Amino acid sequence: LRQGFPEVIFGQGKTVPQMRTIITALLAKGGNILATRVTPGKGAKLREQFPQAVYHPEARALTIEQHEIEIRGAGTVLVVCAGTSDIPVAAEALLTARLMGNEVAALYDVGVAGLHRLLAKGKVLAEASVLIVVAGMEGALPSVVGGLVDKPVIAVPTSVGYGASFQGVAALLGMLNSCAAGVTVVNIDNGFGAAYAASLINRR
Amino acid sequence: LRQGFPEVIFGQGKTVPQMRTIITALLAKGGNILATRVTPGKGAKLREQFPQAVYHPEARALTIEQHEIEIRGAGTVLVVCAGTSDIPVAAEALLTARLMGNEVAALYDVGVAGLHRLLAKGKVLAEASVLIVVAGMEGALPSVVGGLVDKPVIAVPTSVGYGASFQGVAALLGMLNSCAAGVTVVNIDNGFGAAYAASLINRR
Amino acid sequence: LRQGFPEVIFGQGKTVPQMRTIITALLAKGGNILATRVTPGKGAKLREQFPQAVYHPEARALTIEQHEIEIRGAGTVLVVCAGTSDIPVAAEALLTARLMGNEVAALYDVGVAGLHRLLAKGKVLAEASVLIVVAGMEGALPSVVGGLVDKPVIAVPTSVGYGASFQGVAALLGMLNSCAAGVTVVNIDNGFGAAYAASLINRR
Amino acid sequence: LRQGFPEVIFGQGKTVPQMRTIITALLAKGGNILATRVTPGKGAKLREQFPQAVYHPEARALTIEQHEIEIRGAGTVLVVCAGTSDIPVAAEALLTARLMGNEVAALYDVGVAGLHRLLAKGKVLAEASVLIVVAGMEGALPSVVGGLVDKPVIAVPTSVGYGASFQGVAALLGMLNSCAAGVTVVNIDNGFGAAYAASLINRR
Amino acid sequence: LRQGFPEVIFGQGKTVPQMRTIITALLAKGGNILATRVTPGKGAKLREQFPQAVYHPEARALTIEQHEIEIRGAGTVLVVCAGTSDIPVAAEALLTARLMGNEVAALYDVGVAGLHRLLAKGKVLAEASVLIVVAGMEGALPSVVGGLVDKPVIAVPTSVGYGASFQGVAALLGMLNSCAAGVTVVNIDNGFGAAYAASLINRR
Amino acid sequence: LRQGFPEVIFGQGKTVPQMRTIITALLAKGGNILATRVTPGKGAKLREQFPQAVYHPEARALTIEQHEIEIRGAGTVLVVCAGTSDIPVAAEALLTARLMGNEVAALYDVGVAGLHRLLAKGKVLAEASVLIVVAGMEGALPSVVGGLVDKPVIAVPTSVGYGASFQGVAALLGMLNSCAAGVTVVNIDNGFGAAYAASLINRR
Amino acid sequence: LRQGFPEVIFGQGKTVPQMRTIITALLAKGGNILATRVTPGKGAKLREQFPQAVYHPEARALTIEQHEIEIRGAGTVLVVCAGTSDIPVAAEALLTARLMGNEVAALYDVGVAGLHRLLAKGKVLAEASVLIVVAGMEGALPSVVGGLVDKPVIAVPTSVGYGASFQGVAALLGMLNSCAAGVTVVNIDNGFGAAYAASLINRR
Amino acid sequence: LRQGFPEVIFGQGKTVPQMRTIITALLAKGGNILATRVTPGKGAKLREQFPQAVYHPEARALTIEQHEIEIRGAGTVLVVCAGTSDIPVAAEALLTARLMGNEVAALYDVGVAGLHRLLAKGKVLAEASVLIVVAGMEGALPSVVGGLVDKPVIAVPTSVGYGASFQGVAALLGMLNSCAAGVTVVNIDNGFGAAYAASLINRR
Ligand SMILES: Nc1ncnc2c1ncn2[C@@H]1O[C@H](COP(=O)(O)O)[C@@H](O)[C@H]1O
Ligand SMILES: Nc1ncnc2c1ncn2[C@@H]1O[C@H](COP(=O)(O)O)[C@@H](O)[C@H]1O
Ligand SMILES: Nc1ncnc2c1ncn2[C@@H]1O[C@H](COP(=O)(O)O)[C@@H](O)[C@H]1O
Ligand SMILES: Nc1ncnc2c1ncn2[C@@H]1O[C@H](COP(=O)(O)O)[C@@H](O)[C@H]1O
Ligand SMILES: [Mg+2]
Ligand SMILES: [Mg+2]
Ligand SMILES: [Mg+2]
Ligand SMILES: [Mg+2]
Ligand SMILES: [Mg+2]
Ligand SMILES: [Mg+2]
Ligand SMILES: [Mg+2]
Ligand SMILES: [Mg+2]
Repeated sequence: LRQGFPEVIFGQGKTVPQMRTIITALLAKGGNILATRVTPGKGAKLREQFPQAVYHPEARALTIEQHEIEIRGAGTVLVVCAGTSDIPVAAEALLTARLMGNEVAALYDVGVAGLHRLLAKGKVLAEASVLIVVAGMEGALPSVVGGLVDKPVIAVPTSVGYGASFQGVAALLGMLNSCAAGVTVVNIDNGFGAAYAASLINRR
Repeated sequence: LRQGFPEVIFGQGKTVPQMRTIITALLAKGGNILATRVTPGKGAKLREQFPQAVYHPEARALTIEQHEIEIRGAGTVLVVCAGTSDIPVAAEALLTARLMGNEVAALYDVGVAGLHRLLAKGKVLAEASVLIVVAGMEGALPSVVGGLVDKPVIAVPTSVGYGASFQGVAALLGMLNSCAAGVTVVNIDNGFGAAYAASLINRR
Repeated sequence: LRQGFPEVIFGQGKTVPQMRTIITALLAKGGNILATRVTPGKGAKLREQFPQAVYHPEARALTIEQHEIEIRGAGTVLVVCAGTSDIPVAAEALLTARLMGNEVAALYDVGVAGLHRLLAKGKVLAEASVLIVVAGMEGALPSVVGGLVDKPVIAVPTSVGYGASFQGVAALLGMLNSCAAGVTVVNIDNGFGAAYAASLINRR
Repeated sequence: LRQGFPEVIFGQGKTVPQMRTIITALLAKGGNILATRVTPGKGAKLREQFPQAVYHPEARALTIEQHEIEIRGAGTVLVVCAGTSDIPVAAEALLTARLMGNEVAALYDVGVAGLHRLLAKGKVLAEASVLIVVAGMEGALPSVVGGLVDKPVIAVPTSVGYGASFQGVAALLGMLNSCAAGVTVVNIDNGFGAAYAASLINRR
Repeated sequence: LRQGFPEVIFGQGKTVPQMRTIITALLAKGGNILATRVTPGKGAKLREQFPQAVYHPEARALTIEQHEIEIRGAGTVLVVCAGTSDIPVAAEALLTARLMGNEVAALYDVGVAGLHRLLAKGKVLAEASVLIVVAGMEGALPSVVGGLVDKPVIAVPTSVGYGASFQGVAALLGMLNSCAAGVTVVNIDNGFGAAYAASLINRR
Repeated sequence: LRQGFPEVIFGQGKTVPQMRTIITALLAKGGNILATRVTPGKGAKLREQFPQAVYHPEARALTIEQHEIEIRGAGTVLVVCAGTSDIPVAAEALLTARLMGNEVAALYDVGVAGLHRLLAKGKVLAEASVLIVVAGMEGALPSVVGGLVDKPVIAVPTSVGYGASFQGVAALLGMLNSCAAGVTVVNIDNGFGAAYAASLINRR
Repeated sequence: LRQGFPEVIFGQGKTVPQMRTIITALLAKGGNILATRVTPGKGAKLREQFPQAVYHPEARALTIEQHEIEIRGAGTVLVVCAGTSDIPVAAEALLTARLMGNEVAALYDVGVAGLHRLLAKGKVLAEASVLIVVAGMEGALPSVVGGLVDKPVIAVPTSVGYGASFQGVAALLGMLNSCAAGVTVVNIDNGFGAAYAASLINRR
Repeated sequence: LRQGFPEVIFGQGKTVPQMRTIITALLAKGGNILATRVTPGKGAKLREQFPQAVYHPEARALTIEQHEIEIRGAGTVLVVCAGTSDIPVAAEALLTARLMGNEVAALYDVGVAGLHRLLAKGKVLAEASVLIVVAGMEGALPSVVGGLVDKPVIAVPTSVGYGASFQGVAALLGMLNSCAAGVTVVNIDNGFGAAYAASLINRR
C-alpha cells in the first residue's frame, strides 16, 4: 500500500522523546521519514541523535532519506504562492510532494494584486500536472490560477493575516466559493495534506 | 447641503401607501427622486399614480427626474462586476451614481476566472476616476482590479452564492482582506452606499 | 480548451427565458449541454421548446446530448453517499462526471453507522480511480472511505440535517479536518464542482 | 447522596494555596479525592504537602484514596480514542470512571481512517456497558462506534487539531449530528463530565 | 439486535409515496413502526392507506403498533419541559421512549423562572430512572433538574425563541456548559435521539 | 453631573506612567478615584507613589477615597454569584457600587445546580433594591434569581469556562434569552458597567 | 406579586384557539391583558370573540383593559428610536410600559446620522426617568443617548437591516460594547422585555 | 505609477535581518520608506544600522525620508478617534497619510458618549477633504461624523475592547451597517489601508 511514500510523523504536540521513539521504530522499517510541524529547537535536538536527518527550516520539517526517492508521479506538482508569509505552508507542500516521489516546481512571488508577474509565468503553469495554490488573506489566488490552467488545483488557505482574516477563515471561504471550476480545498495551513492529495492524483 | 443629489427613499419594508406619501412630499421640494429596493409590483403601482416615474427593473429602483441631472463629478464612475447574478447590485450602483451627477460607465462581464476579458479592458479601467467593484462568491474581483488601477476602489460584496458563501460573508471577508491597497468596502448588496461614497469622492 | 467537456449552465436564479436564450446560443456551438440546479417546473417548460432535452429529476439537471459522449477518463469515477437525502447532490455529481467523459459508478446506501454495508463493497471502492464522497450531518464518510482506498477522494458536504448541522457547516468542517490523507473538499452541495475536479484528475 | 463518589476539585484557575485549603477540608470528610486539571507543577507542589497523593500525568489529575474504591457499577465503562493527542482527555475520563466505582477499560489506538484496528476489537466493544468515545478533528469515531454497539455512547470532542477544527468545534458539531442513534455529547475536552454521566448510567 | 425496538422512519424531507413504500416494507417484518417529523397533512394521507396507523399531532409522529409493546426498561423515563413551545420536542421524546418499551412520565409545566412548581414535583423527579429535559431559550432547565437528581439527564435544546436564541444555539451552548454533572446533550430539537439514548440506558 | 460618583479610570492597556498622570490630575479635582482592571503588579507600583491608595486584589481595582462616600442610593445593591471563578467580576461590581454611594451586599456561593443554598437566602434576595447577578458557563443564575424577586436584575456574563463556553458567549446568550422578565444584560466580564447601571437605578 | 401589572401572553407561535382559551381564563381573574406578537389576522379573529379588545397594529399587540391603569411609576419612561423600521419594536415597548402603569413618552425620529434632531430634544431626554432606546443596523443610538442623560438606558437591538446586520447581531454587539456607562441590553426585538425592566426600575 | 508614494514594508512577522535586506534594497531606489507594524525592539535594532531612520512609537512604524515629501493631495486628510486605546491605529493612519503627500490633521479625543467635544470641533471637521475615523468597541463614531460632514469617510474598526467586542468584530459590523451614507470600511486595525485609500481620493 502507498508504496514509495515516506513514513510520516505529525510533530505538533509531540515531545522530543516521543518523536525519538517513533523515528527509531520507523527507521527500522527501512523507508524514508518525513516529520512535519517540527520547531527549529526540536529539529536541532533530533539531529543530535539522528545525524543523517535534514532539518528544513522554511518548511519546519525534518526528513531522513534512507534510500533515494523514486519518481513515481506522471508529471510535475507545482506549488504557487503570493509571498513571504505563506512560504512555510508552501514549503511544507513542496517538500512533502518531493518526498512522495514527484517532480516538483515552485512559484513563490505571484499575487493577485500584481497580475503581470503571474501572467509572465504562463509556461510554468501550463506545464504542471497538478497545482497546489497557497494563499492567505482573501485567498483569491486559486481562482485566478484555476482560470488559467486546465489541471486540478488544490487550494490551501493559510492563517496569515489579521483582523477579519480570522486566522485563515476568510481565505478558506474564498477558496470554497471559487468561481474557477476544478479547485478543491484542504484545511487551513495543511500543506502536507495538499501534497498528499496531489501525489495520489499525479501518480495516476 | 449635498446640492445636486436626489432625494432618496429606501423602499425595502415600506408599503405602497407609505411610499406614495413620501414621494408626494418630496416632489413638492422640486428635486429628483430615487427610490431603491422597489419590487416590480410596487413599481407598477407607484407608476399608476406617478406616470412621470421610471421603473428600472435591473436595479429594482424607481426614479422621478424633475429636472435635468447636472454633472458635478470630476471624472467617470466605473461599475465593474463579473456576471449575471451580481447585476442587480451593480445596476443599483450605476443608477445611483448617475442620479448623483456623475458620468458613469459599466463593465459587466469580467471575472477573475477569465482574466483575459478583464485585461482586454485596461483602457476603460484606466480612464475611470473611481471604481465600484461588485462581486459575490469569493469576492476576488476588487483585489484584481485594485492591482490594475491607481484609483479608489469601492468593493461591494453580494449575497449571491450558496453553501459556504453564507449570504455574502465570504465575499465580504475577502474584500476586507484585499491584498490590493486602496480598496474600501461597504455592506453586502449595498450598491447604493457604494455609489454615494463614489459620488462624494468624484465631486472633489 | 477543455475539449470534450459539455457547455454548462448554472440554472439557479436564472429565469426560463434567460435559460432559453443561453441554450439556443450554446446549441449553435454543437456541443453537449448540461444545465444544473433546474427545478422540475423549469425543466418541463424548457423541454417544451427543446424536445431533445432530457430532465433528470434526481439530479435536478437538464441535458442535451448533441453528440455521443467520448470517454476520455482513464478510470472510473465512483460517487458514494449514505442515503436518501444526499442523493440529489450525488446524482448531480454522477451526471456531471458522465457528461464530462468518464466511466461512472455509484454506491448510494453506505453510511458510517452501518459499516458492514460499506466494507462489503471493498471491491467497488478499490476499482475506482477517483472517488466523490457525498455526506451531510457529521460528514464522516469521506474519512472512512479515504482510509480504505489509495485514490484521490473529493468530499462534498451537503446541507442535509437540522439543528447543529447548520446547513452543511458541520459536514464541511468534518471533511476539512479529515484524519484520512488524500481528501480534498468542495463547497456545500457542490456536486458539480466535485465532478469537474474529478474529471480533470481522471483525464490525466 | 452520590455515595461512593469521590469529592471532586476542578483545579483549573485555582492556586496551590487555594487547593491546599480545599483538599485539607475534604480530607477531613474521609472520602476519596479527585482533583482534575492540575498541571505537573501544581501536582508536584501539592504532593509535598500531601505525600499520600498520586499525580497522574497523562490525565493531568491528582488523587488521594483514603479508602478502597468499592465497585458499584453494573458493567464496564470503556474509553475509546484514536491517538496520542486525545489521550489526556481520555485518561481524565478513565481515571474519573475508576474513582467513581466502575470497572474500566481503554482502547486508545483506533481511528476511523484505519477501521481494521477498530473492527478487530469487536469483542472489547461488545462487552462494555457504557462507552466514552473521545475524538478531535472531525469527531467521527463516536458515529462509527455507535454503529457497532447497542450500548449508550457518550461522545467527548477534544480541542485537538488546527485551522478549521476551531479548538474542538468541528468535532463537537460532528458528534451532535451523529448518524448513529444512542450517542449523547458533553462539552469539548470534558472527560470528567463524560465519566460522571457514565457512572450514573452504569450504576443503574 | 435492538430487539423490542420499533422500526423508525425519519419523515422529514420524504414524500408521501416514499413513506408509503417504506412503511409497506416494514409492516411485512412484523414489528411496530414509528415515523417522526410527519406533518399533519402527510399524516392524514398516510392514514388513508394505513387505517391502523395513529397520528400524534403534538409529537408530529405516526405510529403503527402491530403487537403490544413489551416493557423492557428497568425504570421510568421522565420527560421534563417548561412550556407550550417546547412540547412538540418533548412529545416526540415521550412517544419514542414509550414505543421503545419504557414506562414513561411527563412533567410539562416547570420552568426555571418559576422554581416552586418544579420543586413541588420533587417526588416525580426522584422516582425517574433517566430524565430527558427539553428546553429552548437559555436552556437552563437541565442544570436545575440535574442538581436535584442523581440520575442521568439527557438535555435537548429546542429551536424555540427569537433573536439571540439563534434557532437553539443559545440553549445548546447553555446545556453543553451545564454546571450540573451527569448532563449529556443531543442535537437541537432531537427528541427522538434523546429517547433512543434514554432507552439504551434504561434497558441496562 | 453624576455628583457623588467617583472619577473612573479603565486600567486595562494603560501603562503605570500613564495611570500616574491621570491619577495626579484627578486627585486635584478632589473627588474619589476608582481604577478598574489594575493588575497586582501595577497596583503595587501605583501605591508607592500614592500611599493613600487601596488595592483590592479580588476586584483587581485600586481606589483612593479623598472624602467619605455619601450614601445616595435608595436601597441595597446585591451582588450574586455562584462560585470561586466568577468572584473577580462580582467583586469589581461590588466595589464599584459601594464607591458610587450604595449600600451593598454580596451572596457568593449560590449556583443553579445547588438550588437549596440559593433558596435559603430568600430574605437577602427580597431585601435588595437592585440585583447584579454574575455567572459564567451556562449563565442560568439570573433567570433563577429573576424568578424569585420583583426587582431589576442586571446580568453579567463572565468569560469563565472552557470549550463551548467560548469565553463567555454561552453565558451571554443564555442571559439575553432569559425566561425571567426584568433581566437586562451587560458585556462579558463588565462588573463595572453593571454596578454603574445599578447605581443609576438605585438613585432614583 | 407584581400588583398592577397586566397578565401577559406571548402570541408568537400560538394558534387563535389556544389564545382564546388563555384569554378567557385570564379575563376571569379580572386584570388587564396584554398579548404581544399578534399578527393583524389573529388580532381580527380575536376581536370577533372579544369585542372589548383593542388591536394595536404598530405594536402588533392586543390589549383588554378591564380596569383603568393605575399609575405606579415614579417618573416617565421614554422610548427613543431612529425611524420607520424600528417603530414596531418601539411601539411594543411603549404599549407595554403604559399597560404596566407608567407615564410614557416617545421620540421616534432621531438618529445618529442626524444629530441635530436629537440634540433639539434635550429637554424631553432630561425629563425621563428611564429610557428605552431602540435601534437596528449599527445600534449606535443608545451610546449617544446614554452620553446625554444620567438615567438608566435600556437598549433594544432590532433585526432591521440587511447583509452584515445579521438580523440584529450587529446592533446587539454595538450595544453590549457601548462606551456610555449606564446602558444595559435585552434580546433582539424584545421591546416587551425592555419595558418590563423599565417598569421595575421606575416603580422604585 | 503611484509616484510620490513611499515604498512600504509590512513589518509584522518579518525578522530584523529580513527587514534589513528589504530596507537596503529599497534605499537604493532613492524613495522614502515606511515600515509599519514594527515593534519598539525591532525599531531600535534597525536604527542601529540605519541611523537616518525615525521610529514612531505611537504608530509602531519606522520611516526613512530620503527626500522631502512633496504635497500632492488637494486638501487635508483628517484622522479622528475617541481615545487612548485607538491611538496606535490612528497614528499609523496619520503617519501614512503624511508620507503619501497629504496635509494631515488629527482629532484624538472625541467620542460618541461625549458629543459636545465632537460638536465643538465642527470647523475642523468641515475643513477636511477626506476623513479617517478610527473606533473600537461599538464603532459608532463614523456614523456620527458621517452625519456631520459631506466628505468621504473611511472607517477603521480597531481590536480594542473586551468580551463581546470580539477583537474588533463588533466595531466592524457597526461600521458596515452605518446609517450615514458616504462611509466605507477597511479591515480591523488597518490604519495603513485607510490612509492609502484616503491618499488616492485626496489626490484626485
Ligand atoms: N502538517 C500536517 N497536517 C495534517 N496532517 C498531517 C500533517 N503532517 C502529517 N499529518 C498526518 O499525520 C499522520 C501522522 O500522525 P501521527 O501518527 O500523530 O504522527 C500522517 O499519517 C499524516 O496523515
Ligand atoms: N439600497 C440602500 N441600501 C442602504 N441604504 C440605502 C439604500 N437606499 C437608500 N438608502 C439610505 O436610506 C435613506 C432613506 O431611508 P428612508 O428615510 O428610510 O427611506 C437614504 O438617505 C439613504 O441613506
Ligand atoms: N475537568 C472538569 N471539567 C468540568 N467540570 C469539572 C471537571 N473537574 C471537576 N469538575 C466539576 O467541578 C466541580 C468542583 O468545582 P470546584 O468546587 O470549583 O472545585 C465538581 O463537582 C465537578 O462537577
Ligand atoms: N471594567 C470596566 N469595563 C468597562 N468600562 C469601564 C470599566 N472600568 C471603567 N470603565 C469605563 O471607562 C471609563 C474611563 O476610561 P478611560 O478614560 O480610558 O480610563 C469610565 O468612565 C468608565 O465608563
Ligand atoms: Mg481551470
Ligand atoms: Mg490600486
Ligand atoms: Mg486514502
Ligand atoms: Mg449504537
Ligand atoms: Mg445530578
Ligand atoms: Mg423577577
Ligand atoms: Mg448616561
Ligand atoms: Mg456625510
